[in-house]
Amino acid sequence: MTKPHACRGLWVPALTPFTADLAVDASRFISHCEWLLANGASGLAAFGTTSEANSLSSAERMALLDGLIEAGISPAALMPGTGCCALPETETLTRHAVDHGCAGVLLLPPFYYKGVSDDGLYAGIAQVIDRIADSRLRVYLYHIPPMAGVGFSLPLIERLVRDFPDTIAGLKDSSGDWSNTAAVIENFPNLAIFPGSEVFLLDGLRAGGAGCISATANINTAAIGALYQAYQDGDPGLDADQEKLTKIRRAAETQPMVPGLKAVIAHARSDPEWLTTRPPLVSLQSEAATNLTEALDALDFTWPS
Amino acid sequence: MTKPHACRGLWVPALTPFTADLAVDASRFISHCEWLLANGASGLAAFGTTSEANSLSSAERMALLDGLIEAGISPAALMPGTGCCALPETETLTRHAVDHGCAGVLLLPPFYYKGVSDDGLYAGIAQVIDRIADSRLRVYLYHIPPMAGVGFSLPLIERLVRDFPDTIAGLKDSSGDWSNTAAVIENFPNLAIFPGSEVFLLDGLRAGGAGCISATANINTAAIGALYQAYQDGDPGLDADQEKLTKIRRAAETQPMVPGLKAVIAHARSDPEWLTTRPPLVSLQSEAATNLTEALDALDFTWPS
Repeated sequence: MTKPHACRGLWVPALTPFTADLAVDASRFISHCEWLLANGASGLAAFGTTSEANSLSSAERMALLDGLIEAGISPAALMPGTGCCALPETETLTRHAVDHGCAGVLLLPPFYYKGVSDDGLYAGIAQVIDRIADSRLRVYLYHIPPMAGVGFSLPLIERLVRDFPDTIAGLKDSSGDWSNTAAVIENFPNLAIFPGSEVFLLDGLRAGGAGCISATANINTAAIGALYQAYQDGDPGLDADQEKLTKIRRAAETQPMVPGLKAVIAHARSDPEWLTTRPPLVSLQSEAATNLTEALDALDFTWPS
Repeated sequence: MTKPHACRGLWVPALTPFTADLAVDASRFISHCEWLLANGASGLAAFGTTSEANSLSSAERMALLDGLIEAGISPAALMPGTGCCALPETETLTRHAVDHGCAGVLLLPPFYYKGVSDDGLYAGIAQVIDRIADSRLRVYLYHIPPMAGVGFSLPLIERLVRDFPDTIAGLKDSSGDWSNTAAVIENFPNLAIFPGSEVFLLDGLRAGGAGCISATANINTAAIGALYQAYQDGDPGLDADQEKLTKIRRAAETQPMVPGLKAVIAHARSDPEWLTTRPPLVSLQSEAATNLTEALDALDFTWPS
């Protein structure tokens, strides 16, 4: 069993909207987060890859987190990403989240250097935990080798769990490799394991996973949340629902993920400002956006409101 | 011909020393930089990969640059690395360097997202230049795909040079691929091209390169600087000197580069504090350090003082 207070369900790496001059649009961000929570999200894994968090300054990230809490969103529904390349910045963001009473933090390993040892990655995480030195800290390890270029091997997870049993609460697996997700679930039954895509939601739940943290939950929130809830309720016939989720995810994957999701929101809300990304991401061209919206319509997709 | 004021020669990505509790040791850093400039370095490409710059906060980087200038080092001898994942942080660091009158900045592309388009990387660089909006800015593109996971293709360089002819001054090529370095030198004769290793120093100079920016210049400064100068003076017989530089570089490459260089400095200066690295890098174990120092001794290496 995962720990009693571990996060479970559908946690959404909320998209971060920008104005035309590439400033963070806090107002639209908070509205989007409120919409997610009102439409099937269990919580927000804000400031993830989908959130373009590494394209934000630490000050921008903390201001947005402050804004969510000032808007009345419960810290118990927040698992902000706080892992940076530099230990002092990771420490600052993590302490800020803990001071707010957030449910946890989603921690990237330090990701600039490649080919580093498990000893080095262990030290990167251990230093953060030791410096925060707060029993409220709950760490969810963020395993995303396709972007970070480094990740959490099974022996590294084991060592972290052994040395910080009360702090290491779970892991998000964005490897895209189900065999790795299955191995992590099997080896660490006390951790809350979140596949990084709803494609693996039902398989994950059946294996003992905690739910999912998925980019496409920004647009298909209710349906993904409903499948999670139906599984909890012992509902049969979920394979067909899973298949529909998977088809929508595959349609989204035909475009660069973040620009594509922003194009879907812009279309659904008739709000072209949502198209904007920060470099190095590039807004979807209108033809690609049209292809994507048509593909979703063909799948009987319920558009976000 | 490269531009009249372009940087040339041996620019050293100065190592950053840390205290035992992983704080930056500004005093040792400044002393090391002064030693480099007094022993054959043309300038300092501080805050590069070798400097563990991405393991420093922006505030730490700016404080160290302030410290170098307060210590009397000429900004004309400084080309700080300023490229971060997040545009606001790159902008802050770049403006800080320009305000100090630094000779240039060494600019990593935004490096979190992988598989991004040249359009996105172009926007990342163009936004920085447009926001700084200062005719004093000189950008040296930092091409290091093995770490950044993204880099500067020939078409991307061409587009940047075309649109910002007065600003794009050069490129450091840390691809480790001589054929790429040769192609950049051939295609962009107006840029100052620095191979990222002294292994390519003589080949680079003969092809029209500007010198080199190399990690191992932290320990083999005088010999590398001397070869550069001898080439300028039309000295014959440089292939044997190049061969000796290459052998020392290859010896250093038998260990993780930054921990290995720090172990060499710690040994040479009898100063074990120099061994310390920030995670995810790990200090060299004593046996590996001994192997490295013995290998260097066998090559008749002149130890740093």
